[in-house]
Amino acid sequence: MAPILIQLSRKKDSPLYRQIVDQVKSSIDAGDLPPGSTLPPSRQLAEQLGIDRSTVCEAYAELQALGYLRSRPGSYHYAEKRRREVAYDPQRPSTIAWAEQGSAESSEVLRAYREFSPRREARAAGDNPRFDLASIDPDPRLYPLRDFRRSVRHVLDAAGTECLQYGDPQGYEPLRETIARRLRLHGISVSKDEILVTHGAQQGIDLLARLFSAPGRSAVVESPTYSFALPLLRFNRLEVVGVPMTPEGMDLDGLARTLGKIRAAFVYTMPNFHNPTGITTAHRHRERLLDLCFRRNVPIVEDGFEEEMKYGGPVALPLKSIDAGQIVVYLGTFSKVLFPGLRIGWITADKELIGRLLAIKRFSDLTTNAFGQRVMHRFCELGLYDRNLRRLHRLFKRKMAVALEALEASFPAGTTWTRPSGGYAIWVTMPKKFSAGDLLRRLAPSGVDVSPGEPYFPRGGPSAHFRLSIARPNEAEIGEAIGRLGRALRAFC
Amino acid sequence: MAPILIQLSRKKDSPLYRQIVDQVKSSIDAGDLPPGSTLPPSRQLAEQLGIDRSTVCEAYAELQALGYLRSRPGSYHYAEKRRREVAYDPQRPSTIAWAEQGSAESSEVLRAYREFSPRREARAAGDNPRFDLASIDPDPRLYPLRDFRRSVRHVLDAAGTECLQYGDPQGYEPLRETIARRLRLHGISVSKDEILVTHGAQQGIDLLARLFSAPGRSAVVESPTYSFALPLLRFNRLEVVGVPMTPEGMDLDGLARTLGKIRAAFVYTMPNFHNPTGITTAHRHRERLLDLCFRRNVPIVEDGFEEEMKYGGPVALPLKSIDAGQIVVYLGTFSKVLFPGLRIGWITADKELIGRLLAIKRFSDLTTNAFGQRVMHRFCELGLYDRNLRRLHRLFKRKMAVALEALEASFPAGTTWTRPSGGYAIWVTMPKKFSAGDLLRRLAPSGVDVSPGEPYFPRGGPSAHFRLSIARPNEAEIGEAIGRLGRALRAFC
Repeated sequence: MAPILIQLSRKKDSPLYRQIVDQVKSSIDAGDLPPGSTLPPSRQLAEQLGIDRSTVCEAYAELQALGYLRSRPGSYHYAEKRRREVAYDPQRPSTIAWAEQGSAESSEVLRAYREFSPRREARAAGDNPRFDLASIDPDPRLYPLRDFRRSVRHVLDAAGTECLQYGDPQGYEPLRETIARRLRLHGISVSKDEILVTHGAQQGIDLLARLFSAPGRSAVVESPTYSFALPLLRFNRLEVVGVPMTPEGMDLDGLARTLGKIRAAFVYTMPNFHNPTGITTAHRHRERLLDLCFRRNVPIVEDGFEEEMKYGGPVALPLKSIDAGQIVVYLGTFSKVLFPGLRIGWITADKELIGRLLAIKRFSDLTTNAFGQRVMHRFCELGLYDRNLRRLHRLFKRKMAVALEALEASFPAGTTWTRPSGGYAIWVTMPKKFSAGDLLRRLAPSGVDVSPGEPYFPRGGPSAHFRLSIARPNEAEIGEAIGRLGRALRAFC
Repeated sequence: MAPILIQLSRKKDSPLYRQIVDQVKSSIDAGDLPPGSTLPPSRQLAEQLGIDRSTVCEAYAELQALGYLRSRPGSYHYAEKRRREVAYDPQRPSTIAWAEQGSAESSEVLRAYREFSPRREARAAGDNPRFDLASIDPDPRLYPLRDFRRSVRHVLDAAGTECLQYGDPQGYEPLRETIARRLRLHGISVSKDEILVTHGAQQGIDLLARLFSAPGRSAVVESPTYSFALPLLRFNRLEVVGVPMTPEGMDLDGLARTLGKIRAAFVYTMPNFHNPTGITTAHRHRERLLDLCFRRNVPIVEDGFEEEMKYGGPVALPLKSIDAGQIVVYLGTFSKVLFPGLRIGWITADKELIGRLLAIKRFSDLTTNAFGQRVMHRFCELGLYDRNLRRLHRLFKRKMAVALEALEASFPAGTTWTRPSGGYAIWVTMPKKFSAGDLLRRLAPSGVDVSPGEPYFPRGGPSAHFRLSIARPNEAEIGEAIGRLGRALRAFC
């Protein structure tokens, strides 16, 4: 029998059995109770300590489960050599070289992610930007918290605990009906069965890339295009091929030539308030794009991320509205109008394709969060979405006008910019090219944060462009920020 | 000038400009206004209709944006041939053969998804199951809606609109701190920096599979294992290699032989309350598994999906707690205790690996939903998680005892089952093998829904097993359901 000294205190916070566990653990870890040494029988230890035997049994059971004791016939317990729990040490390296263990694509996506991060840091370092003209999600000061709260209350009252369960993998059915109704306002006729609710539109792009990914396949994108699509498509083993944007939209002759040369998985396009240029294509352009892809049997991924932000007058209807051949896959989202933190978007497409995307989504994340879907549904059904959209249209129409006036007044000769009919993005062209880092450093003293052009181009490299967004600042801030930018630009443009 | 008859009504619901738009659209669509025909100048049409000219201009602008009119010098407007909006037709097929356009892996995952679905249908068809012993997410009757509501209120009061924005891509920082604190209770010492919040533990598996996927790589799993992991790993181009489960856990000699033969991306294991068998491994087994993988430089993915459900007495600590080499990637989730609909899980691992996984997550879905994360964080910080966990432990301890007693009393000789020390799953072995469909048909008359063994095995095929789950039914329902199952089994076992 090993000598073991256990001291119990009834005053301590921890229960008696826990004190026994801790002291035996320490004795074994410290080597005072060497492996193989016998512990006192539970009855004996209980008598010795003047406590109930069941307390000792409880402690021994836990020590056994934790690997500190082993029991042998005759109900004796022996100390076991046991590896210690590892204390936290932020410097301890892994013995596995993750860079080698991970795929080549995963190293590439890490590189892209890091490239975005230093840019953020450079921006952050520059005199604390007071004006955010970089973000493209709307000003949270405009989120109707009271209306949101009301929707939450409705959901909790009506649904009970059902709103906290997994729910329909394709998406909450009433929300899919609401989405189908909203799409009809934009000329798109689909039923809830052709809609898959996604964890934001970003997951929509990911699911499509995963579905269509195959060796030798390319994704055709506008150049420039949504910067966060590029690393994602490449991570999914698709080669990215850019077709230049013209002031009227993607160069369709260029697209025709490109499609003749490659195996296209799909063409990714943003016909309204294109990110980053703000360009909106005409109906005729949409028909031609559709015809071109239809003849070549290439699916079109139409990103309607700001479909609802048509505040600047009439705009052509989505490609999806005239898609008789069912080749258009339409991506929608609530995140670019309200509540990006809820992460609710959707895909609408041919029913068979929706089924295929659902299978991927089902196994990769089970479902989109049920609570957020119900709140969003209720928010729409209470008329709060429409009401807030009207309010946002009024506000953004004025904000865009202020921005365009300020550009006219403040920007140096030689700089040009687009005049969007909705959405948030204005694309500025300078007379010279700059790398993203260089441009941010030059603009930092102005205290205004913009989005440099470099990451929007599939080929990357220095760019003569940057994106201004009116999503975050109010009218006064826009005027002030563009004035500051103009002064900064004069110094080097 | 084409003859055009426009009739306005001031009584109609729709505004005057909308009536003009609709009537011109119809005339063009119907061919009454052939392409190229001129429309009356706005001033003339305004006079003719007795309305303001600006109303006509507004209508013409919209018709132009929609592609129905073109303007030419002299401000004349001409009708344009325009493709009609496509009406909804659920029967209209796509001109694209999605099966050919999609990858081979996507067809495979669809097949797997469909295989799960008929099973559900077969179950649903069987006399309306009144007892769900198939689901492994907990009884929603036990969700503390009042506590949830309180947490929501706190978040909305304290955070304002911030809770509806995108938030930190790695996960809401205070929630990561809460998770780190909870992990310490299970012997795992990490900081918030080694935690990545995911859209449920399922996304954790997906991110790891995506990271480690490379040609010729295999994922080693227990056989049987979590059924929803299998199609997901395969979709990610990993070959799945099963190592048999013994009553003590994965056969480690078998694992050693397997690792000698293949290029393993990782070993996926569930040491506690293994799904589907309910088996919990001893500390010694965990040390040996860790040593084996450490020596071979193979990462371990430890799925701690029911770490918190240790209601049946002490259980060994996670592999991660003794992972000095930082080779263990630990997956956790809130979904198997409370609120699966919030979709909040996490990965904790070596910081460099977390950075690599974050890059993939960042581009594939931006962030996990911010609102749910904040509610979950508040729920924990208010002490509601601990309180509810204690309640669940009391309830489930009784439920498991009732289930094991009922099995003893009702199941026919020749059937055997595991006796789990926590969690929800009991694994039943019958004297004969059945396909999933066959077993469900035979059990359907009992009105009890169980989970057949077939999909849990990497190789599939008829199985002598099924999984019973005590997650959903209450004590009375468990007793009744197991009695009914016993009677049904007697008929064919």
